[in-house]
Amino acid sequence: MAKLSGIRNALYAQSGGVTAVINASAAGIIETARRHRNRIGKLYAGRDGIIGALTEDLIDTGKESRAALKALRHTPSGAFGSCRYKLKGLDQNRAEYERLIEVFRAHDIGYFFYNGGGDSADTCLKVSQLSETMGYPITCVHVPKTVDNDLPITDCCPGFGSVAKYVAVSTREASLDVASMCRTSTKVFVLEVMGRHAGWIAAAGGLASDKDLELPIVILFPEVAFDQERFLARVEANVARYGYCSVVVSEGVRGPDGKFLSDQGLRDAFGHAQLGGVAPVIASLVREKLKVKYHWAVADYLQRAARHIASKTDVNQAYAVGKAAVELAVKGRNSVMPTIVRKSSSPYRWAVGVAELEDVANREKMMPRDFITEDGLGITRKCRGYLAPLIQGEDYPPYRNGLPLYVRLKNAPVKKRLRTGFALK
Amino acid sequence: MAKLSGIRNALYAQSGGVTAVINASAAGIIETARRHRNRIGKLYAGRDGIIGALTEDLIDTGKESRAALKALRHTPSGAFGSCRYKLKGLDQNRAEYERLIEVFRAHDIGYFFYNGGGDSADTCLKVSQLSETMGYPITCVHVPKTVDNDLPITDCCPGFGSVAKYVAVSTREASLDVASMCRTSTKVFVLEVMGRHAGWIAAAGGLASDKDLELPIVILFPEVAFDQERFLARVEANVARYGYCSVVVSEGVRGPDGKFLSDQGLRDAFGHAQLGGVAPVIASLVREKLKVKYHWAVADYLQRAARHIASKTDVNQAYAVGKAAVELAVKGRNSVMPTIVRKSSSPYRWAVGVAELEDVANREKMMPRDFITEDGLGITRKCRGYLAPLIQGEDYPPYRNGLPLYVRLKNAPVKKRLRTGFALK
Repeated sequence: MAKLSGIRNALYAQSGGVTAVINASAAGIIETARRHRNRIGKLYAGRDGIIGALTEDLIDTGKESRAALKALRHTPSGAFGSCRYKLKGLDQNRAEYERLIEVFRAHDIGYFFYNGGGDSADTCLKVSQLSETMGYPITCVHVPKTVDNDLPITDCCPGFGSVAKYVAVSTREASLDVASMCRTSTKVFVLEVMGRHAGWIAAAGGLASDKDLELPIVILFPEVAFDQERFLARVEANVARYGYCSVVVSEGVRGPDGKFLSDQGLRDAFGHAQLGGVAPVIASLVREKLKVKYHWAVADYLQRAARHIASKTDVNQAYAVGKAAVELAVKGRNSVMPTIVRKSSSPYRWAVGVAELEDVANREKMMPRDFITEDGLGITRKCRGYLAPLIQGEDYPPYRNGLPLYVRLKNAPVKKRLRTGFALK
Repeated sequence: MAKLSGIRNALYAQSGGVTAVINASAAGIIETARRHRNRIGKLYAGRDGIIGALTEDLIDTGKESRAALKALRHTPSGAFGSCRYKLKGLDQNRAEYERLIEVFRAHDIGYFFYNGGGDSADTCLKVSQLSETMGYPITCVHVPKTVDNDLPITDCCPGFGSVAKYVAVSTREASLDVASMCRTSTKVFVLEVMGRHAGWIAAAGGLASDKDLELPIVILFPEVAFDQERFLARVEANVARYGYCSVVVSEGVRGPDGKFLSDQGLRDAFGHAQLGGVAPVIASLVREKLKVKYHWAVADYLQRAARHIASKTDVNQAYAVGKAAVELAVKGRNSVMPTIVRKSSSPYRWAVGVAELEDVANREKMMPRDFITEDGLGITRKCRGYLAPLIQGEDYPPYRNGLPLYVRLKNAPVKKRLRTGFALK
């Protein structure tokens, strides 16, 4: 356990793909740390995530105004910068961990808040363990964040609810568009969404259809090997019955051979390789086999950056896990992660719980099989019951001149104290 | 001029690609017609647009409740159905026009409100002219609608402001996402937007960057032949200076040879032709020439259906032209189109004007050259001054269970009165 007496500084870092609400977690951490000045002195942030920590490129969050922190809560992306930089295992690259602890020691950092997904949970745990071994114990708390919703133990992951809302709303809107034109125009619309391994985001497309508005939607999950005949038969049946069909396809869908459908070896007229998405592949298949007009969209970053249509539930949970992380840390809880605990689905009630990082690291939560219909092309009632609360509520940012007013922080640098640099690999 | 005495029925039809606000125009027409019962008896709608008129498949809008009409104002897509069905010239297919007038006569229709773009303005004019010739004069009013913003005379087209807002907001959000990850991840983000002939929608991407938040954005317009060297040099310079670059590309961009860039003759591993978008083409070019990591998105229907982020200005204008169309018609104005007249840009003030259809039909409004920067890769201050007011204000739909509550109308059929059917070509 970390030292429990005295005032220590803290370091916060954002990790991996950013989300519409990761900054709400940052706001929760910073605002809560400011209420614990008897325990937490300075709160630094790593510029561009853990890279900033390794290179001693730190940001003093104390320079940010209260107004900026308030705006941080409604600003998408990673306000301090994030990175894709996975620390290797301790045995493979102990130097990286030692460097981290060297930087922590130089800046009297006693608390480490790492905001990310599975990889960063693992890193967080290792930093905690090694710091103990090295005689400079650091209280390490992982703050969950991932649009993929694949962390274990926590009922859901901050970041996911907002992507889910974006996908559900967009699928509803585009489906209405297609419905109104299908007699003479597009009959099949394909929307590609994120989710390399888990189909949580694609599943959210299923929410677009409910008792308020029934819409024919087919979903393709990475958990289910693509069955071309079955898929085409379902699309054809929907077109026959409704006049049209929407398809929400996860980028990670694979064929029976285990290969990504998106990996089609596309070549342009000059023979150059083209990296395609899976949406055009599905659309071309529809055209070739069903001979109907199609359109396709690829949401890509728009989906995870769409703070303008964030889920209020998600924003509140993102803020809550940030706040809880600081509260856990000042109570001396180490190597833990705040979680979302579902108390009830209808009405939706949740609370913040806590998980040991040992139980979190290196485990992925896939869609349970009973969340996917037997034919593999839709979501079950059980899945709907799980997903529906996560997109509840709107949390609109303020606007000026027709555009959301997102904040850009000062990100004032902290003076370096080490003479040595660090070469990133 | 149409008969000015007595009560006549009216027909409303939606034409071409639908928008986030075409139903607001419909609401304006229906609600205003209900206030003129001394002139307009029944207000019918064509099911699936003009096809419904030709096949005598009419909808009685009188069966819709006030609550449904209120919801219509915030529901995207075409609530009565729209179609892509262009009537040929009078000399080529007089039978179609005669059939229309036969249906109008059978249902005592004296007013025709046609809600669409350039083609439907032309059709509207022809119906008016022929009805006069055939001794059954009909008051024809065209109601402007097109996301392409390419109708003449009117300062802007209802439907465009909301797409522009969607593109501006999405570009801002995605750019922040890329900015926060660019040190180790994506450096160039490409967003493909609509606009086969005119670059108005792509231009709106330029609004994402303003004095509140400066962002490096490059725009590719259909009006400017793609200059590969210049484009790559600009992207490279942005990456060098800012660490990243966003590119908003119009689907209609063409190379110096006049061919669409999207038409790359893509083949899959089996030699099948693949229809691609232009975003992956630009992205592949960036990868090949600049060797940096990229991502791309294709907004497709999401952009024109995105009622959740509609421009309040656009919604108000869409409603206003619908209302004005009825008011013009009951005053006996024939072969006209309500227009948006800009009184001032800052502060933005507008009013509804009127144009003769003869001056509207078959003319396209392209981006003025002085709206595009000299290098062809951005928007000028003048363009910004034009565009900025059009995305002002938010007009959120109501939500239930986290999803926008869009209405599906009853669309009750009107009993047929003709014995003859009509075969669509």
